[in-house]
Amino acid sequence: MIAVFGHLNPDTDAITAALVYANLLSRQGTPAVAYRLGELNFETAFVLREAGVTSPELLSSLPDGHQVALVDHNESAQSLGGLKKLSVTHVVDHHRLGDLETSHPATLRFDPVGCTATVLLRLHLEANLPVEPTDARLLLSAVLSDTLHFRSPTTTPADREAAAFLAPIAGIADVTAYAMLMFAAKSDLGDTPASTLLKMDYKVFPFGGQKWGLGVIETTNPGYVFGRQTELLNAMRTEKSAAGLDGLILSVVDILNETNHTLVTGESEAEVMQAAFGATTQGGVADLGNRISRKKQIVPTLENYFSQ
Amino acid sequence: MIAVFGHLNPDTDAITAALVYANLLSRQGTPAVAYRLGELNFETAFVLREAGVTSPELLSSLPDGHQVALVDHNESAQSLGGLKKLSVTHVVDHHRLGDLETSHPATLRFDPVGCTATVLLRLHLEANLPVEPTDARLLLSAVLSDTLHFRSPTTTPADREAAAFLAPIAGIADVTAYAMLMFAAKSDLGDTPASTLLKMDYKVFPFGGQKWGLGVIETTNPGYVFGRQTELLNAMRTEKSAAGLDGLILSVVDILNETNHTLVTGESEAEVMQAAFGATTQGGVADLGNRISRKKQIVPTLENYFSQ
Repeated sequence: MIAVFGHLNPDTDAITAALVYANLLSRQGTPAVAYRLGELNFETAFVLREAGVTSPELLSSLPDGHQVALVDHNESAQSLGGLKKLSVTHVVDHHRLGDLETSHPATLRFDPVGCTATVLLRLHLEANLPVEPTDARLLLSAVLSDTLHFRSPTTTPADREAAAFLAPIAGIADVTAYAMLMFAAKSDLGDTPASTLLKMDYKVFPFGGQKWGLGVIETTNPGYVFGRQTELLNAMRTEKSAAGLDGLILSVVDILNETNHTLVTGESEAEVMQAAFGATTQGGVADLGNRISRKKQIVPTLENYFSQ
Repeated sequence: MIAVFGHLNPDTDAITAALVYANLLSRQGTPAVAYRLGELNFETAFVLREAGVTSPELLSSLPDGHQVALVDHNESAQSLGGLKKLSVTHVVDHHRLGDLETSHPATLRFDPVGCTATVLLRLHLEANLPVEPTDARLLLSAVLSDTLHFRSPTTTPADREAAAFLAPIAGIADVTAYAMLMFAAKSDLGDTPASTLLKMDYKVFPFGGQKWGLGVIETTNPGYVFGRQTELLNAMRTEKSAAGLDGLILSVVDILNETNHTLVTGESEAEVMQAAFGATTQGGVADLGNRISRKKQIVPTLENYFSQ
C-alpha cells in the first residue's frame, strides 16, 4: 500500500492532491492511501466539510523502505522525516525540483502550472478516466486556493481551463462565490495561537549554505494579523532559534488587494529584504509590493541573491 | 531555442530521443533543436543511416543560463559540463532521479519503463499528435536497442506495446530481422581503439563517497572482445587513473545468450564483485551470470553495497 502525502504544514492543494491521487492510483490498480503531515488549515477544513470528505489521517513516520508517493512537494525539508530512507515511487508536483533522489526509476510528473490539481486533472484525462464529482470539487478548490482565485502570478491558462472543466462536474455553479467563502474561512483566524499562525503555510528552504523559514498568511483581513504583530514576532524569534535558522520571514498577503507586507524577525532579514528586493522595512514590516507568490516571486529571488 | 540532448557516450535511445523530442516540442510550439554529447556508436550510426536522418550536431558547451531539455538521463555526471549553470526546462527520462535540481518549476516526465522512446510515444498519444513515420522508426529502434529486443529485465509490457504500435507506422514488417541487423552493426567493432570500445556505453556513478566508471559492451560476438582483453585492461587502467576513479569495470554482455562477463581493472574491483554480487573473478574477468542490465541489476546492487 503506497502512502500518498503532501508537504508539511499542508495547504488545500497538498491535502486534496493526496486524496485525489490516492484514489486515482487505486482506480488504476495500485493500492494507495492518503495521509497528511500536519493539521488542516481553516480553508482546507472548510473545503473538506463542504465536500463531505473525511480528513486523511496524520502521518508522523514510516518504516525504512516504505513506498511513498509525494504530491505538491519534493524537497526533503518539506516532507516526512527520514524521506531519504523511504522508497519514492511516484511524485506529482508543480514546484522546482529540489534535493529529491530516487533509488529506482520512478513515475515523476512535474508540470510548470499553478497547482498540483491541474496536473492531476491531466492525469485523469490522459488515462481516459472520468473525474469523480467529489474529486472534481477537491481539485477545483485547490486551483482556487493555490491561484488565489486566478490572482496569483503563478496562474497559467491551464489552471483556468482546469477550473472551467471541473466546476460543472463538481456541481459548483458560482465559482467566484465559492472562492470568497473559502477565503473567508481561511481568514477566520479567531484565537489561533501565534505559533500556529506562523506555521499555517510555512516552508524551510536551503539558500546557498543558509536555511531560511518562509511563512505566508493569505487573508482577506490583514488588519487582524497586524493587530497581533508583537505576538507573531515573538513566535518568529522562538522558531528561528529553535530550528537553527539563518533567517525567518512571514509574508502577510492581502488576497483581495494583492499586496504583501512581510514581518521580518530581525535586522539581518531586513537587510536581505533591502538587498534582494529593494524593499524598505519599517516597524518590523517590509513592503514587498505586489509580490504575492512565494514560489514565483520570493523563493527564486532569494535563491538568486544567496547564490551570488 | 531549447537545446535537447541525451547523455554523454550516447546510445541509440539517447540520440533518437533528442531528435524526436526536439521535433515534438517544436510541433507543440516550443522551438527546440537536438544535439549529441559524443560520437555515434555503430548501432546508432546504422539506425540513422537506415532512417535517412542526419546526425544531430556535437555539443561541447553552452552559455550560462541557456535553456536545455534533457532526455534519457538526469545526473550531472552524465550530462553536459556546467549543467548546474544551465536552465533545465524539460526532462524526459526512465532512470532513477539523481542529483538534478531546477531553479524554476519545469516539465519533468519520468516513467519506470525500458526506454525513453516508450515515454516519448506516450507524450505523442497524450497530446493527440500522430507519430511521424521517421520518428516512429527512430523510437522503435530505441526500444529494440535499450531492451535488447525485449531480452533485458528492464523490459516492461509498455515497451512491447510501444514497439507493436510503432512498427507499422515505421514501415518495418519484420521487427526481429531489423533488430538482428542493428545488433550486427553494433557488434562490428573492427579496429576500433580499445579506449573507444571502453567508452562506447560508459557512465560514471557516485556510490556513497566513491566514483565508479561502469562500461558495457553489448555484442553478438563476445569472443572478439575477449580477444582484445589486454588492450582493454590497459585502457581501463589509464582511464581509471586519469579520471580519478575509485573503481572501473567493463561488462561484456552477450546479447543472444544473455550472459555478462565483466572485465575488472584490479584487485579492489574484484573484491567488490565478490562482496556485492558473490561473483568470482578469474583471469581479470568476473562472471556476473545473467545480469545483463546495468540500470536494473548492476547499479542498484552497487549503490546498496556502498551505502552500507
